[in-house]
Amino acid sequence: MGGVNRNSTLSQSNSIQQLARKVKKASYSLAHSSLQQRNKALLCAAEALRASMNAILSINSEEVEKTEVGEAFKDRMTLNENRLEAMAHGLEAIAMLPDPLGKEQACWTRPNGLEIRRVTVPLGVIGMIYESRPNVGADAAGICIKSGNGVILRGGSECYQTAILIHQAMQKGVQEAGLDPDIIAMAPDNNRQHVKDMLQAVGLIDVLIPRGGRSLVEFIQKEARIPVLAHAAGLCHTYIHGLADFEKSRAVLINAKMRRTGICGATETLLIDQAVARQYLPKLADDLIELGCRLVGDTMAVKIDSRIGVAKENDFATEWLDSVLSVKVVKNIYQAIQHILKYGSGHTEAILTEDKEVARYFMDHVESAVVMWNASTQFCDGGEFGFGAEIGIATGRLHARGPVGVEQLTSYRYEVIGNGQVRPV
Amino acid sequence: MGGVNRNSTLSQSNSIQQLARKVKKASYSLAHSSLQQRNKALLCAAEALRASMNAILSINSEEVEKTEVGEAFKDRMTLNENRLEAMAHGLEAIAMLPDPLGKEQACWTRPNGLEIRRVTVPLGVIGMIYESRPNVGADAAGICIKSGNGVILRGGSECYQTAILIHQAMQKGVQEAGLDPDIIAMAPDNNRQHVKDMLQAVGLIDVLIPRGGRSLVEFIQKEARIPVLAHAAGLCHTYIHGLADFEKSRAVLINAKMRRTGICGATETLLIDQAVARQYLPKLADDLIELGCRLVGDTMAVKIDSRIGVAKENDFATEWLDSVLSVKVVKNIYQAIQHILKYGSGHTEAILTEDKEVARYFMDHVESAVVMWNASTQFCDGGEFGFGAEIGIATGRLHARGPVGVEQLTSYRYEVIGNGQVRPV
Repeated sequence: MGGVNRNSTLSQSNSIQQLARKVKKASYSLAHSSLQQRNKALLCAAEALRASMNAILSINSEEVEKTEVGEAFKDRMTLNENRLEAMAHGLEAIAMLPDPLGKEQACWTRPNGLEIRRVTVPLGVIGMIYESRPNVGADAAGICIKSGNGVILRGGSECYQTAILIHQAMQKGVQEAGLDPDIIAMAPDNNRQHVKDMLQAVGLIDVLIPRGGRSLVEFIQKEARIPVLAHAAGLCHTYIHGLADFEKSRAVLINAKMRRTGICGATETLLIDQAVARQYLPKLADDLIELGCRLVGDTMAVKIDSRIGVAKENDFATEWLDSVLSVKVVKNIYQAIQHILKYGSGHTEAILTEDKEVARYFMDHVESAVVMWNASTQFCDGGEFGFGAEIGIATGRLHARGPVGVEQLTSYRYEVIGNGQVRPV
Repeated sequence: MGGVNRNSTLSQSNSIQQLARKVKKASYSLAHSSLQQRNKALLCAAEALRASMNAILSINSEEVEKTEVGEAFKDRMTLNENRLEAMAHGLEAIAMLPDPLGKEQACWTRPNGLEIRRVTVPLGVIGMIYESRPNVGADAAGICIKSGNGVILRGGSECYQTAILIHQAMQKGVQEAGLDPDIIAMAPDNNRQHVKDMLQAVGLIDVLIPRGGRSLVEFIQKEARIPVLAHAAGLCHTYIHGLADFEKSRAVLINAKMRRTGICGATETLLIDQAVARQYLPKLADDLIELGCRLVGDTMAVKIDSRIGVAKENDFATEWLDSVLSVKVVKNIYQAIQHILKYGSGHTEAILTEDKEVARYFMDHVESAVVMWNASTQFCDGGEFGFGAEIGIATGRLHARGPVGVEQLTSYRYEVIGNGQVRPV
């Protein structure tokens, strides 16, 4: 790809702008396509992915081999038959979802007889910037097709050739359904300048969705001139209240921390009421240590169980994404909430308690996108929410919070239907 | 105010940040206040405004007098008894609206028994940047109180002393209701640096709402590092279709153009089908010219009625905000829609026709926030939509489009209620 870098910044800049203009134009026709057409595109794309399976797996294994990165990164890059089949199946699942477009959200009649309807429409053009996982390209394109949005994909440069083949399969599906293949575009090469150009594409890209590590997401949030839907971190808390059921808490906490440690919905910090800490904490530590989890805690936690290491202040601000759990013994729910407000990332927090009023207080006063009562924080996921698929999880306040699925990629317009009404002076 | 400018940029910058932190903290308690308290604050603020009427009118007339600006600007700056009473009454109207907070938007149960609810919450802190009209400060503060949001007001420097008194009355109302007066803050002086600092207050201000001329709004949209809800322009079109009812069209067009020419919902361009142009245009021109409206048009329009001046290409891209109307004769609905897509600002467009299918096609294919059928574009207004009050009108795609009222200043959270569920591997 070296040749590409010789081009001037200006021409690179033009290439993303030109691309975005093409996608914008194509997205206009997509917005008026029928549900049948969009679903057909998804089903055809799934077939095209399966048909290219050998080619995709072969180029992917070449790319994995020549990339010099850690094992965890390699694993994320790697496709195999199961993963590719899951991608194809995901597209079919999106096809099964109800149409998010043209839905009447509200309708009312004014005293002057004007009828006002609020109806869902696509957002426009999505800029999808992601790192290592090649499946994100297919998932994102699928969600955008369903929701009537154009999309520009910019995947990690390590998987650029894999991404090209996935992109071709998606475009093939779109074309077979009689839609304009330009609705799914891909950055023309893996030059990093394209990411910067996407951040500046005011009026051409309507929203950016970054998926990847914290530094990527924070960079995009900081530099983008267009709205961003994202979460930079998932520093999730599970709070075991004094009136929690122990066996329930044990199962939920272990799952919240250990089911998969690398996802943003994994619990990173356990808050536990001092009333039950002495009784519960050693048993919880037994389970966690047996599963290979390291524990760090505040003075009180360490005093209760010496297997818990001494936490540094910064540990409570750390998203471990690993088999490590920060533990803090709290006086009561107020201290638990204060801790979450101070250290949380606004993603997902859970309270474990049998007291309904306490749970209500917690859910009302923790300001995160998702609040849970007696459930594992790992349930924060578009699929688990019943959205069929997700393109990301957002922790901002504007537009969409929590898992972002096809519904969240819509906007609305107002239709005002009259019979010659004029506005009085 | 000269003394203020001697302070360094750094300390100015800190002052907005410090203020925003205080508002953020206060807004947390507001988010958990009862509807009764928020309504009481609104009613008390209305009374406080009335009680300060003499002081406000007197300082306002001083400010109007010493400001060297045009008459239109002076008129916008000016308060009188009626306008102040309207402000107070507006707050009472907001108190009558239903509670936008804690509303269940959706609720469903997953196969594993998890109950998921989507519930409205405040956005957080609103940054309100406006120009000349002092009433915007009271309206915005009222809408923010009702919707549980903190607000930082930054009004035009010409009315700074007026704004201080209005701000004091609003704070008094908030305090009498037992709420923290810090939820309504005002930039500490009229230094322009504060606007720039507000644009950079990432994490402290959640959304900016600018109200004012196009250059102000475009500056903020360009420079802001935080999301903006706004419209830079309202270049609205009224399209008279071949199957329009003439008498209806006549009344609607005159109202859409001439009721008030300076508002963003005023029609700036008339598109008229060539099938009826020869018959209708001279009569419409009669009415408009009699009301003092100047007309400019394309070749065909000029040929039909010589009182219509020759339009320059740029005239169709001009938001007149005055008694001027651009006129274009179009071949058909497709040409009308193409014209709107090219020149429109995404605000409000209307079609006048008796054909339902034609109207449906128009509303589906014009991509503006508000589309109307047989009604005056001047109806694009929060009050006319039944929102009680509006803080602005948005033409972007994210979060809110069209009139922005109390409902649009909310976000949501998900509550996930379980009974010990864990997520399967």
